[in-house]
Formats: sequence, structure tokens, C-alpha cells
Amino acid sequence: MKAFVSHTLNGVNSLVLEDVPAPPPLGPEQILLAMHAASINYRDLLVLSGGLLSVTLPDLIPCSDGAGEVIDVGPEVWRVKVGDRVALTFNPDWIGGPWQPSPRAAGRGGVVQGVMREQLVASQHEAVILPQHLSFEEGATLPCAAVTAWHALCGAQPLLPGMTVLLQGGGGVSLFALQFAKLFGVRVIMISSSPQRCARLKSLGADETIDYRARPEWDTAVRELTDGKGVDLTIEVGGAETVGRSHASTRTGGRLALVGLLSGRPNVSASGVDITAIRVGSRQDFEALNRAIAFHKLRPIIDSRYAFEHLPDALRHLQTGRHMGKIVIGFD
Amino acid sequence: MKAFVSHTLNGVNSLVLEDVPAPPPLGPEQILLAMHAASINYRDLLVLSGGLLSVTLPDLIPCSDGAGEVIDVGPEVWRVKVGDRVALTFNPDWIGGPWQPSPRAAGRGGVVQGVMREQLVASQHEAVILPQHLSFEEGATLPCAAVTAWHALCGAQPLLPGMTVLLQGGGGVSLFALQFAKLFGVRVIMISSSPQRCARLKSLGADETIDYRARPEWDTAVRELTDGKGVDLTIEVGGAETVGRSHASTRTGGRLALVGLLSGRPNVSASGVDITAIRVGSRQDFEALNRAIAFHKLRPIIDSRYAFEHLPDALRHLQTGRHMGKIVIGFD
Amino acid sequence: MKAFVSHTLNGVNSLVLEDVPAPPPLGPEQILLAMHAASINYRDLLVLSGGLLSVTLPDLIPCSDGAGEVIDVGPEVWRVKVGDRVALTFNPDWIGGPWQPSPRAAGRGGVVQGVMREQLVASQHEAVILPQHLSFEEGATLPCAAVTAWHALCGAQPLLPGMTVLLQGGGGVSLFALQFAKLFGVRVIMISSSPQRCARLKSLGADETIDYRARPEWDTAVRELTDGKGVDLTIEVGGAETVGRSHASTRTGGRLALVGLLSGRPNVSASGVDITAIRVGSRQDFEALNRAIAFHKLRPIIDSRYAFEHLPDALRHLQTGRHMGKIVIGFD
Amino acid sequence: MKAFVSHTLNGVNSLVLEDVPAPPPLGPEQILLAMHAASINYRDLLVLSGGLLSVTLPDLIPCSDGAGEVIDVGPEVWRVKVGDRVALTFNPDWIGGPWQPSPRAAGRGGVVQGVMREQLVASQHEAVILPQHLSFEEGATLPCAAVTAWHALCGAQPLLPGMTVLLQGGGGVSLFALQFAKLFGVRVIMISSSPQRCARLKSLGADETIDYRARPEWDTAVRELTDGKGVDLTIEVGGAETVGRSHASTRTGGRLALVGLLSGRPNVSASGVDITAIRVGSRQDFEALNRAIAFHKLRPIIDSRYAFEHLPDALRHLQTGRHMGKIVIGFD
Repeated sequence: MKAFVSHTLNGVNSLVLEDVPAPPPLGPEQILLAMHAASINYRDLLVLSGGLLSVTLPDLIPCSDGAGEVIDVGPEVWRVKVGDRVALTFNPDWIGGPWQPSPRAAGRGGVVQGVMREQLVASQHEAVILPQHLSFEEGATLPCAAVTAWHALCGAQPLLPGMTVLLQGGGGVSLFALQFAKLFGVRVIMISSSPQRCARLKSLGADETIDYRARPEWDTAVRELTDGKGVDLTIEVGGAETVGRSHASTRTGGRLALVGLLSGRPNVSASGVDITAIRVGSRQDFEALNRAIAFHKLRPIIDSRYAFEHLPDALRHLQTGRHMGKIVIGFD
Repeated sequence: MKAFVSHTLNGVNSLVLEDVPAPPPLGPEQILLAMHAASINYRDLLVLSGGLLSVTLPDLIPCSDGAGEVIDVGPEVWRVKVGDRVALTFNPDWIGGPWQPSPRAAGRGGVVQGVMREQLVASQHEAVILPQHLSFEEGATLPCAAVTAWHALCGAQPLLPGMTVLLQGGGGVSLFALQFAKLFGVRVIMISSSPQRCARLKSLGADETIDYRARPEWDTAVRELTDGKGVDLTIEVGGAETVGRSHASTRTGGRLALVGLLSGRPNVSASGVDITAIRVGSRQDFEALNRAIAFHKLRPIIDSRYAFEHLPDALRHLQTGRHMGKIVIGFD
Repeated sequence: MKAFVSHTLNGVNSLVLEDVPAPPPLGPEQILLAMHAASINYRDLLVLSGGLLSVTLPDLIPCSDGAGEVIDVGPEVWRVKVGDRVALTFNPDWIGGPWQPSPRAAGRGGVVQGVMREQLVASQHEAVILPQHLSFEEGATLPCAAVTAWHALCGAQPLLPGMTVLLQGGGGVSLFALQFAKLFGVRVIMISSSPQRCARLKSLGADETIDYRARPEWDTAVRELTDGKGVDLTIEVGGAETVGRSHASTRTGGRLALVGLLSGRPNVSASGVDITAIRVGSRQDFEALNRAIAFHKLRPIIDSRYAFEHLPDALRHLQTGRHMGKIVIGFD
Repeated sequence: MKAFVSHTLNGVNSLVLEDVPAPPPLGPEQILLAMHAASINYRDLLVLSGGLLSVTLPDLIPCSDGAGEVIDVGPEVWRVKVGDRVALTFNPDWIGGPWQPSPRAAGRGGVVQGVMREQLVASQHEAVILPQHLSFEEGATLPCAAVTAWHALCGAQPLLPGMTVLLQGGGGVSLFALQFAKLFGVRVIMISSSPQRCARLKSLGADETIDYRARPEWDTAVRELTDGKGVDLTIEVGGAETVGRSHASTRTGGRLALVGLLSGRPNVSASGVDITAIRVGSRQDFEALNRAIAFHKLRPIIDSRYAFEHLPDALRHLQTGRHMGKIVIGFD
């Protein structure tokens, strides 16, 4: 069967489309998926550049996020059945409760082979049934960005209607956080890089936006919008450049959720903000957000679609940072 | 000044409108309120009938829920200032955190003198500033019913968008729970006593309704609406007659919140439901729901308005059980 | 290989020692165990009597709790290695977070084949490594009783030093709860059926005991020991006969944890106690209690030991209710 | 009556012993205390140096921590009675639940007049009854250091027996954290500045100690003691110099609690540690730790005692940093 492989982890250009062996017979709790869609994340670029993970796979099949149809099941499988439309979790070992270390915690498309292939064998415990109203491409946007956004919003403590959340830019995590935050009845302030992008975020539901090019001291602007107090929760996706202002935008007793691979050195006690490191989320998080998506008929915001064989182009588009929403790969 | 007083706790008819002494000078953390509105609760009827509390006040001034304007403050007051529009908490000693016993825990209009008077002295710690868009009458609906509803919804564990909540009838707690639940993005199933009342609840936002006269085994109907699983949370306001079916309507691992003064004997372990007793809520709950009300410009649902001197008529109307929403008393 | 089997679920007498087929080859995440010990629970009697589960296995191999050595592993196993000494979880699908329904939730030795056999194939996700200082027989006491006790103590909310817990009798759950509660720095009151048993419980660490034969209104005795307030947490293992007094022994705002298969009809709101249904616990609970057991070098309290072929005698001893602590089965 | 006052906030030398006016008559919820003891904290030095608070009191009476006897009560006081032995909370407005901003949040002996006087009027809501077995001097050690230690240990999430906590040095917060941690059944690793101090900490219950002068890369030593994983919780009291190594000593998914007035710039995401800012704690925390202290007959560790008039000497001793445990002031 066809798969994308990087033998050298030497960037997007190291990707080659190859014939790889068909999957082995299924173990008792395994399932076989015909893959129909993927979505890409900034992390996929980092993995392909070889710089992210201390341990990586030889002959890496890239990309963490995919969706497909169950076409066979092992004898002890009970979570799904043939014909079910599913997505796969990022971290196969995080079912629920607090995060725990495991050799697969760094996730699919990195320390576990990724989704850019025609068929894939997974454990039944990695599969999450898609909301009925979503296409495979929409479902493929969820495993990393949506679960991260959900967990950052409500994983550490309850999010209550009327609270205020600060989000950044138009990437996948921030847009899912915007959509989910509105389901929670929360006020959303977003920063972005142009009046056009700010207008687009408002049209997607943001209550207030700040153009950080026009207003470089945007933390002051956030304080002005919150009676000088700061927001209850900030989801930081920018890293070293923004973490200081994000911290300064958050109220005493509030929370700064750090997403993913970024790092920085905020002044941690002056203002009394709690800081939470977000490592995607659990399968229970994924199931909870799917229940919300299904009830509200929410649709992921898709920036653009590429065919399977154009994965490298999709990744190059992601690299520009000019997208708003998820970039998806349709396999069909 | 004028106040309603019951000297005998012999029911609504024992209420007399009297001249009572003007309030004493303010202590350092006390505030003086000119009262503008009250709302009434079923508990007020129970207190007036003398059957509720082991300890009651002589010469009881009834009613727990009121709103007014701050017209004077003691020298150490910082939470409010003259001119502020405020409501008062039900339990003056529950500021935040878990409920704790106190001699005033049974609340205002019972073990603390109530709000049916022209002026009232309270501690600054009992005052909660009203959302700007609410009238005094709307604000007066909040202290008991809205705080109870909020606490029952989210006091024990986070309420997530896409969860399902079961509510009962058209009383104050259930209608606030309906309004708040929609802010949380939650699916709401309600039972009521007629097609007309069911239709009204749907118009107020209920996702599904069940006419329990037409469908006496309404727990079965709830199971049908939830793929056989039962709801995540039931807020029980009916008592001994309904608690068994409420319990049976709730999923294994779900929660049954028991409101107030009611009791019953459900079969507590067969189905594995957690049960939480709700004793109104804290001032922090009140402040949190006010923040949600203010952001969403939510308006309490008012059944009817009575003038100050017609309190007895209002209470008799409440006794019929035919109201939908809160019955308020306008003092002006 | 040898195994105990019940073909008829007709009580202890229906158990027969048989040759059963050797385990099939391992799936990718499966492990093969050489079993060395089991322990028995009251539930095992109920399963064997055929009355417990709506769905049961044909040719049931009984008993949920066992420990053994890993003697082979599938190619994707990372949680354990050959030579590890492990116990198995009761509910194979509850890894962490809130309980979720699954076809295997009713547990091993019921809807999943039990441990009374020489070898056993399990998923790596069911295995928990034993604390080094425990024998296989001691380790075999943990999966049901110890995990239930731990989860009942601290699963619903934090248990703080200085709180008071009420426990009942000398069964496995209650004795583990006693031992764990002392690690948490908690005051323990226990009821039991004789002065001798009370003295034994005191020697095991109980702070106060009540002989409920001498003091049938033992809830009053509990109130006397707690300044009239009641305890913070009661772990109810007795069922319909005791649940009312357990409820009455618990303070307003406190918690009544209902263990297992028991049920009753307490008056649920008069005193404002929260009620939690305990369905054993998660693998994360098991790992957490093992960490506590390892650090404190705690040893399970063993009532008696039977050889593999004497399982029926062990079960008959359990039936008498005269044990104190766990009854174990040594396979070697 | 006699009081220490600083008119200039110019350091310890600016303290003068003066006659100040007798307290005014009591308000309805106020109490009058005859003060018997105080304890001092590093914060008291910072306040006296004028550098700590943006708003300070003119004619400051210093010190946050005191204990005394109730000698009069206002007419609505119910929490205490004449003759009760009490301590006062640091932040008079934090009763329970999450921290909230208030003009008095920066605490007694700073934005509220301190305890270094013969008599003191407080609200009944600031008083916490002392455990019977404690002297006034022992009780006076609790309001800031013990409440901070308790809240840092268990305020953010449950502390379970068998977890590992890292503590620093021999100041009041760290020693209370050590004593409390042992009540929770937790393993304690401590760093200190000499073999003698390490030996003393071990004699007080520390499981392992690290002499950070002998082992400057003490975070590596902490990792070695924890199988390379890091501790579950670190309570950081040192500030900019230590926060980086504290962070590096904590496991992925663990927690770094930042105490008080210190700040620093750890690299916040590389290792995935949650960071919590500790602002002392609530009255409910104080009551909870008192319950634990009373049950376990725990006694605070007192470094030295000074008479009332020798407060300046006591503060100079604190400044040396050579103490181990609390420095108390006896008024009698």
C-alpha cells in the first residue's frame, strides 16, 4: 500500500511516497482502518526537521491526525465495529485521569507511526467515533488541535459562563478554543496580526480582538478590556516572544495554559498566575469534546484542502503561517 | 418604618404590616439598604407555617430574597459604596469553599430577619452588586433560586457542553437551571404537567420536554431520549414523590442534586448514581452567576409582580403551584 | 493446564478442577502470566451463586483477584517485562479518570474469566507491578478490596489529616480502608460485632471502636464521639440494614461512600450528606495505592491461607463472615 | 496601651514602643483580644523596610501573626466567646474558595494594622480557635507560615500518601510543610546549607536531605533520589536563585508551588511542570490544619523566644537566616 515516508528526517523535502508492506494480521484488540483524511500541525514540521524528539522512528510515516473507516476488527474488540467512522488519539496511552509518562506519550507521527498511509492498524483503545455530521476531513482535524484546545480550556479547572479567555492568532488550537469557549458561554478576547484577521476572528465569534501589530503592548490592551484585572485564562501558543505578555494579561489567581512545544521565561510570581503545561489531552477529553461537537453541530474551521499526494505542498503552506484554521489532506 | 411581621408563624394569614423601629447605627462593616424589591420562595411559606426551622425568630420579618440600594456605609466598608444596587446572600456566613455549619446557615427570612421592610442593615459581606441591566425586581429573584440552580449545576463537578441535564417543572430553581444550563452549552430535558407548560419550557430553551401526566413513567421516557443511558445530572426539586424516578433517570456515574427542603428514599446503590445535597450556595457562587448573567444579558423569568402591601396575595399565588418563573414584590 | 471452573453457577459446590486448554499465542500488547496467588471476595460467592450478573460467562473460571509472574510478552508490550511480578486490575477498561461503562466493567471472574488457573493471558494495560516487599499472596489481596478502599477514601475529594472516617467490621475493604486512612493521618472510628473484634481493630490502628451488638443505636455513639456533628466520611459495606445508621452518622456536608453490590434506601436529604457509589477503582488508583504501600512498607492483613485445590473450603470460610482480613489462595 | 509602631518604614530601627489609644467600642460582629504572643516572618522585615507594598499604613503596627484571648464580643458574635484562645487570619477577607482580590488581601501588619500591641479589635470572621494543646506562643506561629505550608501542600490538588515532596531550608514554611507532609504520609526530600542543618531536618522527619553547598547541582541529586523522574511537588521559598533548579527537580506533570514574595524566571514549558502561586491561604485552610494539629498533637518547631519589648532583636535574628523554625514573641 501507499504511504509517505521520511527516511532522513531532513525536512519536508525528505518525504517520499512509497509502497510499504500491508499491515500484519490483527491482534485480539486491534482494528484495521481504511484511512480517508489527515490534518497537519506545526509539530509535524518539527518532527520532519529531525529536531523535536530525542527518540524517533526510522522510516517515519508522518502526521499525528487522521480519520478513517473500520474495515476489520480483532476478536476481543468491543469499542468499535466494522463500518464505524473513527479518528485516532494522539497519545495512545492516555485514556483518562492525569497524564502519565509512557514511551508513546510523544505521540503518533513521531514515536508512533503516523497516519499518511492507506491502511493502519491501531488498538481499539485509540479509536474515537466521529460525530455523525462531520466528514472524514473534518474529523481528521480533531486529534491534536481540538483535544489540546479543550484540555487547555477546562482540563485544570471548571470553565464557567461569563469568564474571560485570551486566545492568540488563527492556528488550529486557537480557533478550536474559540469555538469551544463560545459553547461554554465564555467571553473571548483574541490577538492577531492584521485588521483583516481580526475581522475574520470576530466573524467566527470572538467578542473583542486586538491587532498586535498596531498595539504591540497588547497586554495593556487586554487589561483595559478587563477593568484592569486581566483575563481568567490565557492559552499561550506563541512561545518565548509572547509568554511574558500573556502572563501579564492574566489576572492574579488566573491561569496561563502553555500549549505544546513552546517555552519561555515569564516572571513567575510577581503577579500570582498559575501556569499549566498542556500535553494534548486524554481520550476522555476527546470523547467529551465530540459530545459537545455533536450536540452543537459544530464544524471545524478548515483553511484549505490538499490531496494525499500533495502533502508536501500542504506542509509548505502551513510553514508560511498565513492559514486560518486547519489544513486537511483528503485521501480520496 | 414599615415591615411585614408574623408574630405567630401561623401561615400567610398571620402576616401583619407594622411599624417597626428604625435600624440602629451602623457598625464598622455594616451597610444600610433602602429595599426596593423582594421575591418569594416556597421556603417562605414553610417558614411562615412554623414547621420548617427548629429555631425561629420571634416577630419574624419574612422572605429571604431582596434587592435594594446602599444608602449608608460603616467606616470599614470596602465591598460597596453609597448608591450601589445590591442583593443579599441567603446564608450570610457562606462566602466560598465548602458549606460549613453556622447558626445563620438556615438563612435570611428564617433564622435571620427577612427582607420585607423598607430599610435593612446588613454586613458588607452579604451584599452582591447587581448586574447593571437588571431591575431591582429582577435582581431580587436571585439570592435563593438562582444561586441554588447554579450551585446544583456546577458546584460538585464541572458541567461540560454537550452533557445532558434533567429539570422539573416551572419553579424558580428549575427555570434558572434551564437558563444557566443553556449558557453552559448543555442539553436540557424537562418534565412538566401539561402540554401547555411543556410548550412554554421549549420556548424558553428546553431541548426536549416530557408531559409527566401523559407519561407517568417519565424516567423511561428520559432513558429513551438518552440512548438508554440516562442523563448526566438531574436537579430534583419535587421530593419524595419524584426522587425515585429522578434517580432512575440518571446514568451510572451521573449525579442527582437534591434541592433544598425535600427528602425521599431512593434505592441508592443499584444504579450507581452520586447524590449531592444542595444548600443554596456561596457568595462566590452568586458572584459567578452574576458575571454570567451580566455577560449574557440574561433576564430572570418573572411570573408576576405584586406590590409590597400585597405580599399575602403573592404567597397565596405561589401556593397554587400554577406559576412559571419567579413571583416578585415591587416596593415602589 | 489446571483451572477451577463452574459450569452451572450453582454455588461453591459447582466448582470443579479441570484441565483447560493452554492459552493461545500472545497478541501484540498481551502478556502471559504464571499465576501464583489469588484472594477471594464476597462478590465471588455471589457470582458463583448465579445471582449477580445479568450476563455471565459459560464455564466460568472464578475469582477477580490474582497475582503472578510475567513469563512472556507480545511484541508491543512496554508496561512490563518478563520476570515482573504483577497483579491484575478488576475492571480491565478503567485506566483513569471517571468510571465509564464497558462490557467488561463488571470485572474479572464474572464477565471476564477469573484467575483460578495456572496461566493467564491479559493485556499489558491490566497489569500493575507489585511493591517489592509484598509476596504474591499479599499482592493478590489488592485488586478488588484495596482499590475499592482507596477509591472510597480519596476518589471523590481530598482526604485531609485530622478528618474522621467511619468504617465497618473486619472485611477486606474495611481493613484496607483502616490501614490507608492511617497513612492519610485520619481519625478512624470502627464498628464491629464483639469486644474481641473491637480490640483487634484497635490493635490494627482504629482510634475508637463501637460494639454494635452492645450499642445497637451505634449512630448515636458515633455522634457522641464527634461532638454531635458526625463523621466526614463513612464507607458503607453492610447494605440495607446499616445504610440508614451510616447516613445518620455522617455530618451535614460529609460523604457516604457506598461500596459494591449493596443497596438501601436512606432518607437522602434530611441531613444533607453526599452519597457516592464506588465501583472498585481505576488502574491509576491501584498504582497510587501501590506507591503508598511501597513507601510505608504496609502489609495487607491476611486472615488465612488455602492451597489452590482448597478454593471451595476458602469460599466456605468466607461465607461464615468470621474472618478478619483477606483470605488468600497460594498456588505453589 | 503599648504598641510597636514604625512611622517611617525605615527598617527595624524605625520601630518605637509607644502608647497608642485604647481600641474603640466594638461593632456588632467585632471581638476584643488581649494579645499574648506573636511570631515573625521575613515579610515583616520587608514591610518595615518600606519596599514591599504599594499602599502602606501610616504609623504601622507591625507583624501579621498573633494569638490572644477573647475578652469582649459584640452583640452579633457567634464564632467565639469570651475566654476563647484564638489566632487571627493573615488575609481577613479570604474565608474559603479561590483567592479573590480585596484591599486587605496583602494582609495584617501591612495594609491592616499588625499584632504588636496589648489589645486588638478584629472581626469575628478573622478569629480561629487554637488547638487546646498549644500555648499562645505556639498558636502565634500559625497564621502565615503554617497556612502557607498547608495550602502549598494540598490547596491545588490532593496530596496522596507515597507521593514525594521537595522542601528547602529551615524556615517556618518549610518546617511546617515537613511536619504536615508527614501527616499526609508523604516522602520528604529537603535541601539545606550544612551537614548539621541536614541532620536536624532528618531528626524532624525528613526522609532524605541534600546539602546544597556540597552538591550545588542539587536538582540532579533530587532526580537521582527519584529514579530520574523528579518529585511530585516542590515548595519553592528561595526565589530567583533556586526557582530554576526547583523546576528541574519536579516531574513532568508535577507541581511547583511558589511561596510568597519571591519571583524568578524558570523555563516554563520544557519539562511540563504546573506552577501555582501561593498567597498564604484561607480561613478554611487554617481551620483544616488546626484540626490536623489537634488530632496529631503536633507542636510547631520554635527556634527562639523574645519578650515583647525585644521585637527588634528578634527581627535582627530573623535577618541572619540562621534560625530553624519560628521565632516567637511572648507578651507576658
